[in-house]
Amino acid sequence: MSEQTRVEPRTLKGFQDLLPADLIPRRDVMHAIERIFQKYGFLPVESPAVEHLETLLGTGGDETNKELFTLDTPEEEAAALRFDLTVGFARVLAQYPNDIRLPFRRYAVGPVFRVNKPGPGRFRQFTQLDIDAAGADSVAVDAEIIAIMCEVLSTIGVSEFCVLVNDRKLTSALLDGCGIADQARQKHVLRVIDKLAKVGMDNIRLELGEGRIDESGDPIPGVHLDADTIGRIVDFITVTGATRAEVVENLTRVLPDTDVSADALAEMAELADALNALGIDEAHAKFDPSLARGLDYYTGPVFEAILPQAPEFGSVMGGGRYNQLVERFLDRPVPCTGMGIGIDRLMAVLKHLGVVPEARTTVQVLVAGIGGVANAEILRAAAELRAADICAEGYLAKGGLKKQLKHADRYEIPVAVILGEDEIANGVVSIKDLMAGKRQREGIEDNEAYRKAGKTGQSTVPRAELIDAVRQLLA
Amino acid sequence: MSEQTRVEPRTLKGFQDLLPADLIPRRDVMHAIERIFQKYGFLPVESPAVEHLETLLGTGGDETNKELFTLDTPEEEAAALRFDLTVGFARVLAQYPNDIRLPFRRYAVGPVFRVNKPGPGRFRQFTQLDIDAAGADSVAVDAEIIAIMCEVLSTIGVSEFCVLVNDRKLTSALLDGCGIADQARQKHVLRVIDKLAKVGMDNIRLELGEGRIDESGDPIPGVHLDADTIGRIVDFITVTGATRAEVVENLTRVLPDTDVSADALAEMAELADALNALGIDEAHAKFDPSLARGLDYYTGPVFEAILPQAPEFGSVMGGGRYNQLVERFLDRPVPCTGMGIGIDRLMAVLKHLGVVPEARTTVQVLVAGIGGVANAEILRAAAELRAADICAEGYLAKGGLKKQLKHADRYEIPVAVILGEDEIANGVVSIKDLMAGKRQREGIEDNEAYRKAGKTGQSTVPRAELIDAVRQLLA
Repeated sequence: MSEQTRVEPRTLKGFQDLLPADLIPRRDVMHAIERIFQKYGFLPVESPAVEHLETLLGTGGDETNKELFTLDTPEEEAAALRFDLTVGFARVLAQYPNDIRLPFRRYAVGPVFRVNKPGPGRFRQFTQLDIDAAGADSVAVDAEIIAIMCEVLSTIGVSEFCVLVNDRKLTSALLDGCGIADQARQKHVLRVIDKLAKVGMDNIRLELGEGRIDESGDPIPGVHLDADTIGRIVDFITVTGATRAEVVENLTRVLPDTDVSADALAEMAELADALNALGIDEAHAKFDPSLARGLDYYTGPVFEAILPQAPEFGSVMGGGRYNQLVERFLDRPVPCTGMGIGIDRLMAVLKHLGVVPEARTTVQVLVAGIGGVANAEILRAAAELRAADICAEGYLAKGGLKKQLKHADRYEIPVAVILGEDEIANGVVSIKDLMAGKRQREGIEDNEAYRKAGKTGQSTVPRAELIDAVRQLLA
Repeated sequence: MSEQTRVEPRTLKGFQDLLPADLIPRRDVMHAIERIFQKYGFLPVESPAVEHLETLLGTGGDETNKELFTLDTPEEEAAALRFDLTVGFARVLAQYPNDIRLPFRRYAVGPVFRVNKPGPGRFRQFTQLDIDAAGADSVAVDAEIIAIMCEVLSTIGVSEFCVLVNDRKLTSALLDGCGIADQARQKHVLRVIDKLAKVGMDNIRLELGEGRIDESGDPIPGVHLDADTIGRIVDFITVTGATRAEVVENLTRVLPDTDVSADALAEMAELADALNALGIDEAHAKFDPSLARGLDYYTGPVFEAILPQAPEFGSVMGGGRYNQLVERFLDRPVPCTGMGIGIDRLMAVLKHLGVVPEARTTVQVLVAGIGGVANAEILRAAAELRAADICAEGYLAKGGLKKQLKHADRYEIPVAVILGEDEIANGVVSIKDLMAGKRQREGIEDNEAYRKAGKTGQSTVPRAELIDAVRQLLA
C-alpha cells in the first residue's frame, strides 16, 4: 500500500467528525432524551436512510425538494437520502397497517441529510431524535408532545426556554377571511411570516406587498396583497397575551367571524386546557401567532423551542400535527403529530450556554506495565478487572511508565494499576489514585515537591486484593 | 394534499424497516455490546455516512469499489456512502493527530451501505458496531479484540460459537516461499481461498490452477499455479490441531524455512499465549489457516466469528489488523486492529437459534378513559405516573374501554389505570392487572367465565394512592 498516492484526510463540506470530548456528553444527552420518550409511551421504529425519491419529493415543500441528496440504485430506481425522520414513518404507517395498530407512538434516532448552506451548528448530515404519535386527532396529544419538549430541556439543564405554539388552522382562517383561499398563496404568506425573526416586521410588510430588494441587491418577489390585508396579517401575527388563554381571547378579535375561525379558536382553547392539565408553566409554552415553521406537511398545531439566552441558534427542536401526510401513501388519512430534536444544534447551544454535561471518560483503570513485564500480565489484570465490571484499558503500546501515566492523565482515567517485575515476583500490585495526585500537584512549583506529590495516592497491595483496592478508590 | 397522486408505500430493494418487535430486543443487544466495548476501554468516535469518493476507493479492494453507492454534492465533489466504519476512522486518525493521541481505542455504531445482492440477513443498509485500537503493534491487542468477540457472543446468549483466527503474514510467507511475490497474485489466491466454505476443496484446486466452469456455465479464470504449489497451498489451509499452540506447531512443518515464516509463526505463538492469558477457551478461538477475509486492507491477524448451529448465516462479526490503512492518509503508518459486528445479521441468527431476548415493551401503564371523561383527566394521571418515573401512555384516540384494553393487550402493557366519571366524582381510580387477567383467561371457553375472569385483578383505590398501587402491581 506504500506505493499508492497519498489521499488528503478531509470531510466533505457540511459534514463533521465527532471525537470523544463531544460525543461522550452527546450520548449521555441522547440517552436521557430516549428515556423521556419511553416514559411517555413511545416505542422504537426505524426506517432506512435511503428512500424512493417519489416517497420524499413534495412532502416538505419546494425548499426541501431542493435540499435532497439524490442517488441511483443498481436497479436504476431514483432514490434520495431522507431529509427528516417523519416522512419515512408516514410511509411505514401506510405500509404495515396490520403490524402497527393505532393509536401508536414511535420514537426514532438517526442521521438525516440536507443539501443546505452549512454554518455554525448547521450540517448537511445531522442526527435527529424524533417522536410521532399516530391515530389520535386530539390536541391533547399535541400538548403531550409540547410537554416532552419542556421536559427534555429542563432535564438536560436548560433553565430558560420557551416552546412557541401556533396553529396552521388559525392562519388559514385569517387568510380565508381575507379572500386568499389558494393553497400556494397561503404557503407563500407562511414562508414570508417565517422570516420575521430574521428580517424584521418592515421587510415582512414589503414582502407581503410588492416585494423588496435585499442587502445583496437581489429582488425578493412579493405576495402582492393590498394594504388592508397586510394590516390584518400584521395585527394577527403580533397578537400576544399574559397567558395562553388570553392569547386565544385576543385572537378572537383579529380573526374573521367564520366557522373556520371558530373551529381553530376552539382547538387552541382545548390545547391551552391540556397544557394546563399537564402543569406546563405559562413561561415555558406560549401561543405565538407569528410562528410559521418551514415544512409544508403541517395541518394543525405547530411548535418550536427557542432559548432566549441563545437566540442566534434559532430553534433547537420543533414539530407539529400532520394529519394528511400518511394519506399520501394510503387510501385514508391517519392523524399524526410529532416533533424532532436536532442533537447537533442542541449540543452546540448547550456548549454556548456552558451547561454541557461533563465529558467523563468511561475508562476507570489503566493497567500499566513497566520494565519488560510481559503483555500477558497486563492482559490478565485487565481481564480480572473487567470480570468485576470495571472498565479497564491495558497499555499495550510501547512506552515507559511516565508515558503511560501521561496517557491516563490525558484521557482522565482516574486509577492506574502498575505491574513491574518486582511486583510480580512479590505477588503484589501498585495502585495509583491519579485524581489525588492531580489534586495535590496543583499549584506545586518546585521539582522536588512535584516528584513527591506524584507519589501520593500510590499504594501497594497483595495481587489478590486488586479488585477490592480498585473498587475502594473508585467509590 | 388530497388531490395529489397516491405514492405506493415501499422500501428500496435491500433496505428494511424495523418495527418494535424487532427493534426493542435489538436495542437491548446493542446496549449490551456497547457496554462491553466500554469495559475494554473504548471511547466513542463517529464519522459521517458520506465521504469523499477518493477516501473510500481502493481501500477494501475491487469488490468493495463496485459496492459503493455514489452521489454528488452541490460543490460537485465525488462522494459515496461509507461501506464500513473502519476507513472513516483511519481518515479521522490522520486528520486529528493532536486531538487523538495514541494509543487510542474507539468504538462506533452506525449505518453502512453496500450495493450488494440482497438476501436473508443481507441488506444494502446495515448497522455495524465497530471497535478499533490504534497505536499499538502488539498482537496482545488482537487477542483482546478476539476476547471481546467471545464476550459479546456469550453475553447475548449464544452457547456455541467459534472465532476463527488466521494471520495474513502466514499466507504471505507461504506464497513468497512458492515464488509468488506479486501482491495482486497473492490477493487473487486469498480470494480463491475465501470461497472454500462455499465451493469446496475440489473447486479451490481448480481455481488455483486452470480455472473452472461454474454451475451457471460461466467460466471462472484460474490463478494458473503449478500442481506442486497448489499442493503446498492445500497442505497449508488444511492444517489443524487440538490447540492453538498445536496449530502453530503444525504450521511450522508446511511453511518454507524463511525469516518471513519465522516472524509470522512467532506472531501466532505470541497471539496464542495472549489468548491463554485472557482465559479464552480453545473451543472459542481456533487458529484456522484457511480463513481469508474479504477486505484488502488487512496486514496481520484476521478473525471471524461463526456459529456452528447456524453455518448458513456465515460470519456474524469479523475483523483484523490493518497497519497500513492510516498511511494512505498520513505520512507515517499507524498500527491498528479492530472488528465490526453486523447487528442485522446477528439478530437474524439469534432469531434462528431462538435466543432473541424477549421484546418487552417499555410502556408500563395505559391510562384509559371511559364515558366522556375529559382528556385533561387522562393527561393529569399520565403526567403523575411519569413524574414517579413510570412509563405511561394515555389513550387519547377515540374508542370505548374494550378497545382501549385490547390496545393494552396488543402492546403487552401490564397495567391499566381506568378513569370514569364515577371514579372521578368519588375521588378514586380503578387499576387493572392485565397480566393477571390474561393468565386467568387462558383456557377459558364459555362467555360467562370469560367475563368474570376479565374482572380479576381489578381494584379501586383512592386517587391519592394511584402511584403506590401501580408500583405494587409492577413490582
